[in-house]
Amino acid sequence: MPSYSAPIDDTLFILNDVLKYERFNNLPGFADASPDIVEAVLREAGRVAEEVFFPLNQVGDQEGCVRHDDGSVTTPKGFKEGFEKYKEGGWMGLGFDPEYGGQGLPYVLHTAVSEYLSSANMAFAMYPGLTQGAMAAIHVHGTDEQKQTYLPNMVEGIWTGTMNLTEPHCGTDLGLLRTKAVPQGDGTYKITGQKIFISAGEHDMSDNIIHLVLARIEGAPEGVKGISLFIVPKFAVNDDGSVGDANGVSCGSIEEKMGIHGNSTCVMNYDDAVGTLVGEENKGLKAMFIMMNEARLGVGLQGLAISEVAYQNAVTYAKERIQGRSLSGAKHEDKKADPIIVHPDVRRNLMTIRSFNEAGRAFILWAALKSDIAHRSEDKDDAALNEEMMGLLTPVIKGVLTDKGFDHAVMAQQMYGGHGYIEEWGMSQYVRDARIAMIYEGANGIQALDLVGRKLGMNGGRAVQAFFKEVGDFCQDNRENEELTFFTKHLKKGLNDLQAATMWFVQNAMAKPENAGAGSHDYMHLFGLVALGYMWALQTKAAQEKLAEGAGDKQYFDNKIATSRFFFERVMPETSAHLARISTGADSMMAIPEDAF
Amino acid sequence: MPSYSAPIDDTLFILNDVLKYERFNNLPGFADASPDIVEAVLREAGRVAEEVFFPLNQVGDQEGCVRHDDGSVTTPKGFKEGFEKYKEGGWMGLGFDPEYGGQGLPYVLHTAVSEYLSSANMAFAMYPGLTQGAMAAIHVHGTDEQKQTYLPNMVEGIWTGTMNLTEPHCGTDLGLLRTKAVPQGDGTYKITGQKIFISAGEHDMSDNIIHLVLARIEGAPEGVKGISLFIVPKFAVNDDGSVGDANGVSCGSIEEKMGIHGNSTCVMNYDDAVGTLVGEENKGLKAMFIMMNEARLGVGLQGLAISEVAYQNAVTYAKERIQGRSLSGAKHEDKKADPIIVHPDVRRNLMTIRSFNEAGRAFILWAALKSDIAHRSEDKDDAALNEEMMGLLTPVIKGVLTDKGFDHAVMAQQMYGGHGYIEEWGMSQYVRDARIAMIYEGANGIQALDLVGRKLGMNGGRAVQAFFKEVGDFCQDNRENEELTFFTKHLKKGLNDLQAATMWFVQNAMAKPENAGAGSHDYMHLFGLVALGYMWALQTKAAQEKLAEGAGDKQYFDNKIATSRFFFERVMPETSAHLARISTGADSMMAIPEDAF
Repeated sequence: MPSYSAPIDDTLFILNDVLKYERFNNLPGFADASPDIVEAVLREAGRVAEEVFFPLNQVGDQEGCVRHDDGSVTTPKGFKEGFEKYKEGGWMGLGFDPEYGGQGLPYVLHTAVSEYLSSANMAFAMYPGLTQGAMAAIHVHGTDEQKQTYLPNMVEGIWTGTMNLTEPHCGTDLGLLRTKAVPQGDGTYKITGQKIFISAGEHDMSDNIIHLVLARIEGAPEGVKGISLFIVPKFAVNDDGSVGDANGVSCGSIEEKMGIHGNSTCVMNYDDAVGTLVGEENKGLKAMFIMMNEARLGVGLQGLAISEVAYQNAVTYAKERIQGRSLSGAKHEDKKADPIIVHPDVRRNLMTIRSFNEAGRAFILWAALKSDIAHRSEDKDDAALNEEMMGLLTPVIKGVLTDKGFDHAVMAQQMYGGHGYIEEWGMSQYVRDARIAMIYEGANGIQALDLVGRKLGMNGGRAVQAFFKEVGDFCQDNRENEELTFFTKHLKKGLNDLQAATMWFVQNAMAKPENAGAGSHDYMHLFGLVALGYMWALQTKAAQEKLAEGAGDKQYFDNKIATSRFFFERVMPETSAHLARISTGADSMMAIPEDAF
Repeated sequence: MPSYSAPIDDTLFILNDVLKYERFNNLPGFADASPDIVEAVLREAGRVAEEVFFPLNQVGDQEGCVRHDDGSVTTPKGFKEGFEKYKEGGWMGLGFDPEYGGQGLPYVLHTAVSEYLSSANMAFAMYPGLTQGAMAAIHVHGTDEQKQTYLPNMVEGIWTGTMNLTEPHCGTDLGLLRTKAVPQGDGTYKITGQKIFISAGEHDMSDNIIHLVLARIEGAPEGVKGISLFIVPKFAVNDDGSVGDANGVSCGSIEEKMGIHGNSTCVMNYDDAVGTLVGEENKGLKAMFIMMNEARLGVGLQGLAISEVAYQNAVTYAKERIQGRSLSGAKHEDKKADPIIVHPDVRRNLMTIRSFNEAGRAFILWAALKSDIAHRSEDKDDAALNEEMMGLLTPVIKGVLTDKGFDHAVMAQQMYGGHGYIEEWGMSQYVRDARIAMIYEGANGIQALDLVGRKLGMNGGRAVQAFFKEVGDFCQDNRENEELTFFTKHLKKGLNDLQAATMWFVQNAMAKPENAGAGSHDYMHLFGLVALGYMWALQTKAAQEKLAEGAGDKQYFDNKIATSRFFFERVMPETSAHLARISTGADSMMAIPEDAF
C-alpha cells in the first residue's frame, strides 16, 4: 500500500541551481556528465527504484532470508530477478573506474542514484552497496593482479562483496579481534575465525562472494597495530578467471533482526579459508577505512532515504484521511470531515521531515562533490583540503542523518494513527529498517567521538576552520541581500553557537578529555544543524534567483522558501540547547560511581 | 536474556519521603494502607511481576496470538496460567470499591503496582488494564443491576473487559462513527457495526468478555452528540448470573502489529448483538471518558514502565560489555578493555533515561494521589480542584511519558550496538512495544491539543494557575535553602518559560486558533519538563533531608542528587527551545497550500 516517487526534480535543482556542479567540468568524468546525461541517468534510476526495487520492499520484509542446512541462503521472492535488472542496467559501476568496466561518472551522481534505490528498498540496495565498498578498497589498496581478478566481475555484478570486521566480542574496539591468518609461503594465507553481523554475507544472487576480512597474522603485534585486511572469495578463482572450488568459508546462521529482513545478516565461519593480503601487513585498518568512509556516507544516505519515502507516504495519508475539522473552520465543506493535513500539528510533523529531507539531500550531495574534488582534482592542495573536509563531514552525515532519519520515520508513522502500527500499511517497516542505520558502520556515539576526538583537531583544525569560513563568508557576502537577511541571521546565530561550542572544547577538553566525550553527541547534532541551515540558505538564495528570473515552477520555489523559513524558525532554535548542554561538561554524567548504577 | 527487577525502594522513597502519602490517611482506604502494608503489597507485586509476568514477555512477542477459524483466539503459551496467578493474587480489585469485592486501597498504590506489571510484560498487563477501565466506567455510570451483574466477576478476573471506540474510518473523530443500536422495547438494544484495534477483544483467559461499545441509537443526532455507550457481553448472562448463550459478537481477524504481540488486537464484528445502555442516551462520550482518562494514565505509565526495564538492561550490558578504554586512562587494567559504562556518551544515555524514569515515577504517583483526593475527599472544593488538575495533567502524562519512554527504549537499545538490533537480545521488543503507547488512547498530537485547546482554559485556567502556584511556591519557600539553590534556580527558569508560553497563547491564539495547534506539541513537552523538574526538586530536598538525618542508604541519596543535577543541566535546557518554537506561531507551517504538498 505504500508508494514511492523518486524526487528527481529536487535532485536536479540541487545539482544544477544550488551546487552548480557544472563548475567542475574540468574534473575527470564530469565532462561526460552533461546536464542532459545527468537528467537521463536520474530519470532512469528513478524508474528502476520505483518499478524494480520498490515492489520488492514489503515482500522482502515479510519473507526475509532463509538459510538452509547446507549453509546456502535464499533471498526473498523476486530479489534474484531484481538484481539481474540492476546488473543489466550497469548501475554497479556508474561511478567506478572505466579501466575495470565502470562508467567513471561523478560520485555525486552515484550518490543521487543511491538515495532513490535506498528509499525504494533499503535491504535490497545493501547488496550492491556492500559490493561497491569492497570494490573501493580493492581499487585503492589491491595489487594489479587482485584488481584484474576481482574488479571486472564485481563491476558487472556477477560477483558481490562484503565487509567482515565484527566478532562476537568486538565491534567498535577492533584491537580485540582474534581471527587469525597463517601465511602459507606461497603468498596466500589461511584465515580462521568467526565474524558476525555480515550483511549480504551469503545469498543466491551472485556467482561468487568476495569477502574482505580483517584478521591478525600470526605473530603480529597486539591491538589495532596488528590487523591486516584479506580478500577471501567464497569460491576460489581459477587462473582463467572462472569460479573454482569452494573456499573454507560458510554461513553458520542468519540473524533474526528488527528490520532489513531482506538482507541476509550472517554469522560467517572461516576455517582455513584461503585469502590474499590487501595492502600492507598490519595496515588493515587503513585499507578498511576506505570502505568504511564510503559505507558511512552510504548509511547516512539511508537515513535520508527512509525519511524521504516515509514522508511521501505520510503526506499521501494526511491528504486522504478525513478526521475532524480545521481549527479555523471547515476547509472541505463537501466532506464529512477535513483531511488531517489541515491540522497544524500534522503540518508540524510533515514540515519537520520535509525541511530535513530537502536540506539533507543537499548536504550529502554537497559533500559528495567534495569527495569528487578530493579524488579527481589535479590541484593537490585543493584535493587534500576537500579530503579533510569529507573526513570531518562523514561522521556528521552518518550520525545526524541516521538519527534524524529514524526520528522522521517515527513521525511519519505517527501520522497514520493506529494504522501506522499495523504491518500491512508499511510504516512500521520504515521505522524498523531505519533503526539499524544508527547502529552499524560505527554506532552514532562513535561517530560523535570521531568528530570531536579526531576530526576537529586534525592538521590544527584546518578542515573545521574551512567549514566555518565557508558558512561565515556566505553570510557576510550576502549581508546586503535583504531577501536573505532573515535566513542568514538565523544561520549566523547557529554558526556562533557552533563556534562557541568548539571554543569550549579547546578550553576545557585538553586537560579533561571526558568533557569532549560528554559533549560529543550534542556537538555532532549542533554541527548538523548548522550544515543543514547552510544548505537551506544556499537553496533559498537559488530559489529567490529563479523566482526573480521568472523561470520554472513558481510553486516549487515558493515551497522551497517556505520550508526554509520553517527550518530556521522551528528546527534551528535547538542549537542553543545543544550549546547549553555541551557547556556543562562531564561532571554530572560521571558523578555516580560505576558500581552504584 | 533480558532481566527485570522491580524498583521497590524507589517507589517507597517517593511515596514515603517525597509525597509523604501518610498525610492523607483521613481519606477512605488510606488508613488500610499503612507503611508496612504498602511495602508488603509492593514487594509481592514486584515478585509477581518478576516471576510470573516477566518470563512470559519474550515468548509472548515471539508467539503472538492466533485466531482460529471459529473466531476463537489463543494467547501465547503460559499466558492463561499467568492470568490465573494474577487472579489468585487478587490484583484486579486492588484499588476497587469493596462493595463489589475490591480491596479499596489507594489508586496511588494500584498505580505503583501497575508500573511493575507493565515493565515486566506490557502486552500481558493490558488484559487486566482494559478490564479495570471497563470496571471504572460501569462503576460510575452503570445501573445497580449492571454493577451487580458484571462487576463482581470482573473484580475477580473471571470475566474481562474491553473498550470499543475505533471504526475503520474514525478514530480521533468519533463523531463519524456508524455502529448502530436499535432499541428492542425491552430495555435492550441490538448493536450492529464493526470496531477495529480492540485490544484484548477476544482471548482464552476468561469465561466472558464484557465489551463496552460506542454506538449510535437509531434517530440520534449526528456527530458526537448522538453517541451512546453500551455493555455488550460476549456471552449473555443468565438471571442466576451464570454464563449463557453466545451473543452476536465475534472476532473477525487479529492485526499483525509492530509490537505487543502478546495482546490480541481484534477486528470485532457486531451483528445484532444484544446490549444494554450505560448512562444516558447520547451521552456515551462522557461515560467513555471515565475509561479514557484512566486508560490514558495507564498508557503514560507504560511509557515509564518500558523506559525503566530498558534502562535496567542497558545498565547491565554497559557494565558487562568491554570495549575500548576510558578517555581518562584505563579503569580496569585487569581486563583487555574497560566496560563501556566508563565512556561519557554511554553515561549520557544512561543518565538521560535514569533522570526521566525516577522523575516520571514521582510525577505519575503525585498525579495518582491527586486522583485519590479527587475521588475520595469529603472536601468538595478540594476534590474538584484536584479533579481539574488531574484533567490538566492527564494529557501531559500520556503524551510526554510515552514520547520519552519510546525515545529511551531506543537509547537503551543503542547501548547494545549491533546486538540491540537482534531480536533474541530483547531490546528490539521494548522499542516495538513502546511505540504503540504514543498512538493509542488518543495519539500524542491529540493529547497536546487536548491540553492546549481544552484543559488550559477550563474554569478560567484555575488548574494551570494552581500548578504554577504549587511549583512557584516551592521555589519561593525554599529560597533560603542554599543546598537547593542550584535546583530551584533551574526549575524557576523552566517555570518562567512555561508561563511565557502560556501567556503567548493567551495573546495570540484567541484570534487565531492555529497558533495554539502549532505550539501544542512543544507546549506539552515544555509542561512535562517543568513537572519533571518539580519532581526532581522535591526528591532532591527529600534526599538532602535524609542525608542530614544520616538515615538510610547514603549512596542511594547521593545518586538521587547527582541524577537531579544531571536533569537540570542536561535535560531542562530544552525549555528555551520549546518556547522559541512556540513563539513563532503557525505561519511557517501553514504556508504551503494543501495541494502543493
